[in-house]
Amino acid sequence: MVELGVVYRNIARADGDVAAKLGVLGTATVHEAMGRIGLMKPYMRPIYVGAQASGTAVTVLLQPGDNWMLHVAAEQIQPGDIVIAAVTTDCTDGYFGDLLATSFQARGARGLIIDGGVRDVRVLTDMRFPVWSKAISAKGTVKATLGSVNIPVVCAGALVSPGDVVVADDDGVVVVPGASAHSVLEKGAAREANEAQKRARLASGVLGLDMYNMREPLQNAGLRYVD
Amino acid sequence: MVELGVVYRNIARADGDVAAKLGVLGTATVHEAMGRIGLMKPYMRPIYVGAQASGTAVTVLLQPGDNWMLHVAAEQIQPGDIVIAAVTTDCTDGYFGDLLATSFQARGARGLIIDGGVRDVRVLTDMRFPVWSKAISAKGTVKATLGSVNIPVVCAGALVSPGDVVVADDDGVVVVPGASAHSVLEKGAAREANEAQKRARLASGVLGLDMYNMREPLQNAGLRYVD
Amino acid sequence: MVELGVVYRNIARADGDVAAKLGVLGTATVHEAMGRIGLMKPYMRPIYVGAQASGTAVTVLLQPGDNWMLHVAAEQIQPGDIVIAAVTTDCTDGYFGDLLATSFQARGARGLIIDGGVRDVRVLTDMRFPVWSKAISAKGTVKATLGSVNIPVVCAGALVSPGDVVVADDDGVVVVPGASAHSVLEKGAAREANEAQKRARLASGVLGLDMYNMREPLQNAGLRYVD
Amino acid sequence: MVELGVVYRNIARADGDVAAKLGVLGTATVHEAMGRIGLMKPYMRPIYVGAQASGTAVTVLLQPGDNWMLHVAAEQIQPGDIVIAAVTTDCTDGYFGDLLATSFQARGARGLIIDGGVRDVRVLTDMRFPVWSKAISAKGTVKATLGSVNIPVVCAGALVSPGDVVVADDDGVVVVPGASAHSVLEKGAAREANEAQKRARLASGVLGLDMYNMREPLQNAGLRYVD
Amino acid sequence: MVELGVVYRNIARADGDVAAKLGVLGTATVHEAMGRIGLMKPYMRPIYVGAQASGTAVTVLLQPGDNWMLHVAAEQIQPGDIVIAAVTTDCTDGYFGDLLATSFQARGARGLIIDGGVRDVRVLTDMRFPVWSKAISAKGTVKATLGSVNIPVVCAGALVSPGDVVVADDDGVVVVPGASAHSVLEKGAAREANEAQKRARLASGVLGLDMYNMREPLQNAGLRYVD
Amino acid sequence: MVELGVVYRNIARADGDVAAKLGVLGTATVHEAMGRIGLMKPYMRPIYVGAQASGTAVTVLLQPGDNWMLHVAAEQIQPGDIVIAAVTTDCTDGYFGDLLATSFQARGARGLIIDGGVRDVRVLTDMRFPVWSKAISAKGTVKATLGSVNIPVVCAGALVSPGDVVVADDDGVVVVPGASAHSVLEKGAAREANEAQKRARLASGVLGLDMYNMREPLQNAGLRYVD
Repeated sequence: MVELGVVYRNIARADGDVAAKLGVLGTATVHEAMGRIGLMKPYMRPIYVGAQASGTAVTVLLQPGDNWMLHVAAEQIQPGDIVIAAVTTDCTDGYFGDLLATSFQARGARGLIIDGGVRDVRVLTDMRFPVWSKAISAKGTVKATLGSVNIPVVCAGALVSPGDVVVADDDGVVVVPGASAHSVLEKGAAREANEAQKRARLASGVLGLDMYNMREPLQNAGLRYVD
Repeated sequence: MVELGVVYRNIARADGDVAAKLGVLGTATVHEAMGRIGLMKPYMRPIYVGAQASGTAVTVLLQPGDNWMLHVAAEQIQPGDIVIAAVTTDCTDGYFGDLLATSFQARGARGLIIDGGVRDVRVLTDMRFPVWSKAISAKGTVKATLGSVNIPVVCAGALVSPGDVVVADDDGVVVVPGASAHSVLEKGAAREANEAQKRARLASGVLGLDMYNMREPLQNAGLRYVD
Repeated sequence: MVELGVVYRNIARADGDVAAKLGVLGTATVHEAMGRIGLMKPYMRPIYVGAQASGTAVTVLLQPGDNWMLHVAAEQIQPGDIVIAAVTTDCTDGYFGDLLATSFQARGARGLIIDGGVRDVRVLTDMRFPVWSKAISAKGTVKATLGSVNIPVVCAGALVSPGDVVVADDDGVVVVPGASAHSVLEKGAAREANEAQKRARLASGVLGLDMYNMREPLQNAGLRYVD
Repeated sequence: MVELGVVYRNIARADGDVAAKLGVLGTATVHEAMGRIGLMKPYMRPIYVGAQASGTAVTVLLQPGDNWMLHVAAEQIQPGDIVIAAVTTDCTDGYFGDLLATSFQARGARGLIIDGGVRDVRVLTDMRFPVWSKAISAKGTVKATLGSVNIPVVCAGALVSPGDVVVADDDGVVVVPGASAHSVLEKGAAREANEAQKRARLASGVLGLDMYNMREPLQNAGLRYVD
Repeated sequence: MVELGVVYRNIARADGDVAAKLGVLGTATVHEAMGRIGLMKPYMRPIYVGAQASGTAVTVLLQPGDNWMLHVAAEQIQPGDIVIAAVTTDCTDGYFGDLLATSFQARGARGLIIDGGVRDVRVLTDMRFPVWSKAISAKGTVKATLGSVNIPVVCAGALVSPGDVVVADDDGVVVVPGASAHSVLEKGAAREANEAQKRARLASGVLGLDMYNMREPLQNAGLRYVD
Repeated sequence: MVELGVVYRNIARADGDVAAKLGVLGTATVHEAMGRIGLMKPYMRPIYVGAQASGTAVTVLLQPGDNWMLHVAAEQIQPGDIVIAAVTTDCTDGYFGDLLATSFQARGARGLIIDGGVRDVRVLTDMRFPVWSKAISAKGTVKATLGSVNIPVVCAGALVSPGDVVVADDDGVVVVPGASAHSVLEKGAAREANEAQKRARLASGVLGLDMYNMREPLQNAGLRYVD
């Protein structure tokens, strides 16, 4: 059962080096390597074009219109972490701005993923502190009600446990459970190696129909061509 | 009745030269010249600022979470075409990425309009392969169920027949039926010619109220001024 | 009772200098200084990154798919004004484009806030005429039904009276009633002065938990730490 | 400027008898009599079929996820009032349930209009306590942050001042400013009287085209008939 | 190209008897018999539980906030028709109420499908005049701008040509092109005949896994059971 | 890491008696007893008024537009179970209809919670087989791609593990982890016992302000009364 009002200080972080390498692969490749599982809803968008981040998850559960626990979370950040903030209700308030970003950056955070709103986006962009959020809103929040830090949370439709690897870029946000980070990296790297060659063939005019041997299964499925 | 599992190979394409000229006019002017008809829903957005494309439509009907027919469509692309992908259900999966884009570009496609999701948007942006979509999502798709190619489709609320001209830019996506492409071009060009002069007058401080002779109809409609 | 078919010519504008200074503070600071009130819904987004505007409100109430009153409003614009357009129904049509923008700019308008659609966004961006809107749409509108100019309107969830100060940037749009503009400016400026110092401390690694003295209230609220 | 943390105890209520008669006319007729102004957004729906209420507005401004001010509002209710609750942010939490409804009903409230969520809808239905809301949600709320009671609020896109008449039924929620309640009632009653006769003619097969003399204006507008 | 300002008086209606029989089959069965094509978006909902209608389509294209063409359409209705109303833009206004319903019913209409709003829903329910709509709204409309009657329209994502069969019930709205109505009826009836027997077997405890012989394909697809 | 293509046959079910008693308490009380955690998003709505169910979760992960795994899940149902179906992408197709419901009911299922669409809702209502869903849609699905059964899933924003208790009624759907079901029941029952007495006091005219001793904290928070 989800607990409110608790901060777990010791979490098992996935290997930071693996997290960094998964970030290089990017969300689309990592998501394929995961078997097409673990993606947050596509309403999560970066605040600037080209934002890219990966790291180990420090999770936060917030109450609507209340960012108290983000301050609590700041203390739990270690270099290489990425903060994942869920909210107990849909709420677009601006939970996070440039002051918190300064603090997070000072603690070594790689970015923020928040299923809510963010503000000061121009300053955050200048700071190159990447945020993926559901909304942008100038509306500030109160500090009145407890949530939790480093419990498993559902953020934008994806389950995130503390220490999991999170990879985010222009295509979205993917969660890789800590226990499978290595194997996902291997699969993703293999996939990546494979793509350069495919790209070259497709660029030369070879059709996917032929490269992937799709003509027979299409025919078996009953596809008809009409001239 | 819409057919599933069929590919029409011979379609009557509108004049490519007309399509190019309609693209220069842009969607707002073309839409006006159409009598304000034929616009896709405004949730269709380009993946990068300044994206612009026009061409003759190769249409695709996809199944939810399944991009098989995009591979089939690739073979039907001729230089100057633009691919229009409808989905039988609302689904934001990333049906299209950089590999398919490489193939489409090699075939001469001018862009993609998809009532679904797209991924690898940074690479697509670097390739300058323009896509207008409902969503951006890292989530890949399967290849299991037949749709069709080059049948009339409803894409983002607009009816598109194979061979129609499609014009897309920052303002949205407009469909011009092949049979009326010439007359729309004429009306649009006339409209365009007219605008430069209007713009100059408005810039000089002339009011639209006077330039368009609106004061009398406003008075007739009962408009009151209160000091 | 909201009146239709009326134009108020004499409105009490807030001090333009105050409006300009509030614009420099930005929406997040102004919204805080307001006590977190007066923000439009976060679906209102600028048409280009970095758009920024503030001014005194000329308000317009439009009918769905009809931009007649924007032409009427143009005549009421004075240098330093910002036009606030509400619509009697949700409607994403492109009520405003480059010709109206040319006219508005010639009259001295600082920008447009419209709870509807806008088009010609590339030209508007080139003109640096900032618009915050609910949608972008190439669809033009008719001129057939009266609304009003310079009556109080509800725009994107916020009440705007003619002459109020409106501040808009990447974080959204905030409305400051004319009567409280001075006091909001004072509070906002004080807040701003305070922030530079906070930022420096947070950047040096001081935690918000300590800087804001949150540890005791968190403990009183029952927060538990688990190792 | 909207004030937070204040309760206005003395408000000028519109005539309760007029409110009751406006309720009998229903929202569609009242809205027409208002000149098609004052309607809340259509996402406001009654919790049960056939819900119907009208009364004088006691307004409340709530904070997200916090229903403290509904308890404060209860004390301000007089028989014949209807409570209008706005929230400073979009939030679907269940701010109101059967206990508050019991209290409101004991105070003489005719219903609740809330731009948020409500719960215990089955019990509320059994009590025949009508509620119009944006959402239904079992999620309870905290009591931590002040809003206000009996200030003007924007609820679901409509401005409501304390004491205004609010009319709600299956077709939605309409706000009639206190000062115009009498004149709206007169116009609405006249309209109503007129409708029975129209209905009879239409039922007998007379076309609106003829009854409203539309054929000539349609022809003037250029309508063509094609056989 | 879609024409505005035109009324087609002579349309080829599908067989009314077939339309009635398709109505009895219901949308789910008809949609299956169509090959899972032709369904309107699921946001189209009936105004009362148990609403059911089928008929031959009289199509209308409306302008936002303007119901003029519904009056024009009334004259084109023949007994057994169902009116399909599309709007050139998303707009939730209440285009249709009890007076128009009285007229439509007097003309023999079976119902209305409208990609917009409707009002007087209580009266319409009492009249048992079924409407499927995107919204319910008390907001009335003007009569100022021409649309068309009996041209092909896109309504809630589905293409409807005049004379097509439209079937609507609690599960949604399906469009059957006139030319395929007979064959769809045959397929649907066969499907229906087949279902009673299946239902009995499933009710007796037989699993779909066995009844549909799914165990082998599941195993081939790689399904693993873990005890 | 979420696995695809796997069915867990042995799951630890929470006590069915506890599940039944939690169902009697209802979602609002259970959600409070949980500390306001575990609620699905409020877009999940019952297909008929008064639907009510509770049981132990059999979970299913579906692919978009594909209901194959619901047939696989049927075999895993034991009397007292409630099926919880998540989808890897947002998709409103009608995954479930009367045939599957017949089978589920024959197996002893108490209901279905599906983050997708459902069809045949009239028949399901006649059967009194309760379903909570995101949408109603006549659109059928294919059987082509594997998901999983009895793995932890995120359904409508809530994490559900196999065997958890799920409680659903008019107010929404709440998930109670198996391990905490007993303690939640105790807290909920205590809460319930407390409410009858509160209701009586409120009905007699006592204000919540007094009953809950709110006057002092409100004053401390700075609430001002203005006469």
